[in-house]
Amino acid sequence: VQNYRITLLPGDGIGPEIMAVAVDVLKVVGKQLNLSFEFQEALIGGAAIDATGSPLPAATLDICRNSDAVLLAAIGGYKWDSLPRHLRPETGLLGLRSGLGLFANLRPAKILPQLIDASSLKREVVEGVDIMVVRELTGGVYFGEPKGIFTTETGEKRGVNTMAYTESEIDRIGRVAFETAQKRGGKVCSVDKANVLEVSQLWRDRITALAADYSNIELSHMYVDNAAMQLVRCPKQFDTILTSNLFGDILSDAAAMLTGSIGMLPSASLGADGAGVFEPVHGSAPDIAGQDKANPLAQVLSAAMMLRYGLSQPVAADKIEQAVLKVLDQGDRTGDIMSDGMNLLGCRAMGDSLIQAL
Amino acid sequence: VQNYRITLLPGDGIGPEIMAVAVDVLKVVGKQLNLSFEFQEALIGGAAIDATGSPLPAATLDICRNSDAVLLAAIGGYKWDSLPRHLRPETGLLGLRSGLGLFANLRPAKILPQLIDASSLKREVVEGVDIMVVRELTGGVYFGEPKGIFTTETGEKRGVNTMAYTESEIDRIGRVAFETAQKRGGKVCSVDKANVLEVSQLWRDRITALAADYSNIELSHMYVDNAAMQLVRCPKQFDTILTSNLFGDILSDAAAMLTGSIGMLPSASLGADGAGVFEPVHGSAPDIAGQDKANPLAQVLSAAMMLRYGLSQPVAADKIEQAVLKVLDQGDRTGDIMSDGMNLLGCRAMGDSLIQAL
Ligand SMILES: CC(C)[C@H](C(=O)O)[C@@H](O)C(=O)O
Ligand SMILES: CC(C)[C@H](C(=O)O)[C@@H](O)C(=O)O
Repeated sequence: VQNYRITLLPGDGIGPEIMAVAVDVLKVVGKQLNLSFEFQEALIGGAAIDATGSPLPAATLDICRNSDAVLLAAIGGYKWDSLPRHLRPETGLLGLRSGLGLFANLRPAKILPQLIDASSLKREVVEGVDIMVVRELTGGVYFGEPKGIFTTETGEKRGVNTMAYTESEIDRIGRVAFETAQKRGGKVCSVDKANVLEVSQLWRDRITALAADYSNIELSHMYVDNAAMQLVRCPKQFDTILTSNLFGDILSDAAAMLTGSIGMLPSASLGADGAGVFEPVHGSAPDIAGQDKANPLAQVLSAAMMLRYGLSQPVAADKIEQAVLKVLDQGDRTGDIMSDGMNLLGCRAMGDSLIQAL
Repeated sequence: VQNYRITLLPGDGIGPEIMAVAVDVLKVVGKQLNLSFEFQEALIGGAAIDATGSPLPAATLDICRNSDAVLLAAIGGYKWDSLPRHLRPETGLLGLRSGLGLFANLRPAKILPQLIDASSLKREVVEGVDIMVVRELTGGVYFGEPKGIFTTETGEKRGVNTMAYTESEIDRIGRVAFETAQKRGGKVCSVDKANVLEVSQLWRDRITALAADYSNIELSHMYVDNAAMQLVRCPKQFDTILTSNLFGDILSDAAAMLTGSIGMLPSASLGADGAGVFEPVHGSAPDIAGQDKANPLAQVLSAAMMLRYGLSQPVAADKIEQAVLKVLDQGDRTGDIMSDGMNLLGCRAMGDSLIQAL
């Protein structure tokens, strides 16, 4: 029996409900495939602020560092929105990313045929869309120094952040993108703003040089404004999108929304070694928290990504992904993806249906 | 007779062709309404690089400064794409914006009923969309110092740009947005990334404070990643979007593409006083340059924006906008907006049709 230590970070809002479903699913798949999971729960986000005064207690980071993978649900809520920055749930998430060195964020946006009508785009525009956004996650304007709100010589305030990348930061995320594309459609589109920004110019030069090591990959470059347009106009043109932290934040959300069902989308955040973090793209949905209405499928698919990318257990990952497709084929739907003639289920009932399907 | 000095910057690619149409239209409307235009042509972009070695010759900036308004077509092309930054067409455009102090960029994205099927989004999602993006244009990461590619202590290169705003820069663009919204739907959505960036935190604080002066405006705030999603999901929720230089670059292009016909979209760039610059949202389309295939309507609508926002001649602006709607109603189309059963026209023929319609 292969044994894995998994840290669970249920976080805020609907987090605990959807996490419970993912844990049940992992247990069943584990039994079937002879994998054993040792789950440890830890605090992050608003829940951690309320309990400890910090959005990322040192104990949480320790537990994560000593585990094989981290499954995160969602953080944040109105309640903590007006706290000072160092006490905000988001600050805990950023601390987790940098604390674990998770420089590579993989965000798939794939249209499921069962849910294609949920898209706000025409069927023929989104049919078959299957994009992987590879976003740099520990650099760029999110972490660059200097940053802060300073007072100028004339006495007025000036808000400052620094958008910066070193060559080695660019190279390591570039390699992740090229290697990801090798397992997919073989195309990388690197997105930057090299016609205006020096940091993007360095990015473009390095990625271009790096491409020499990946002769089987078709590399293209696109400006970020054009990429935002092309995602709307013709998303099928993209296979793997490689981009920086801020541009990836914006474009991966736009790509996610092309599917019309962000309650379905998982993500993976990986470092050079050590535990990765796996979490849904959607937020903590405080408005429906505790009402058994949440869609647990993105959380369950995040557990599948954990098995695939974090624990190298692709068979287990496949099993979970098949189960998700099966319940969708059966017509099972939570409220966010409900349509005429389908079976409306709550969060727990969707979990039960998944277990049946397994 | 009211006399106006207009600087024409035809630029590159299809620029000269579409500019010629706009000038013809302005002459006809001028005659009808007793306005006289004194046109002066000047060099910018690739054309200026070829002729003078600089993408924005000092003479061009002088002529613009001494005119009542500047009508720009489009700049850039493959030919100049690999020149060093200070010799790139885009650098000329950025120099024009900062040289004329054009801090406010107005970018309308309005769905025309005649062209609604050109959108990649479903009819019911985009019907009635009418968004004005108010983008800050002379600050933020486009102009912040320090910037450049530096060598770190360890000997590797680091690309750096600085994203910064002062209170007064935020206030003046904020006022433009509030005043714009007063003439429209009365709603401002300010877009930032205040959960991560200090510069956005200052932005949000100032815009919130400023709202006290505009009690008739409904102000909301949205994170940029969510705004990119919401533009795809439900663009009708937006009236006026207020945002920074970089976010405005990305979001205004996404908003433009919702219409499916960026060959139709004008823009205005305005300063505190002095000449504004009016130009289409689309680029120089070098692939179809010189073939009489370009769509001149965005350029013509830019001339209308010039009349409305630059010269305070709303009646003349209305006349031009009516003529554009009329030719569309007649079924006149250039190749980019062509559909079954319509009349395919070249650039010049579309111009002739507009003159007829006037
Ligand atoms: C919550 C926020 C800090 C975060 C980010 O900007 O990275 C989120 O938007 C995301 O994309 O994971
Ligand atoms: C050409 C480029 C410098 C410019 C910008 O980024 O502002 C363009 O994309 C625009 O939006 O006008």
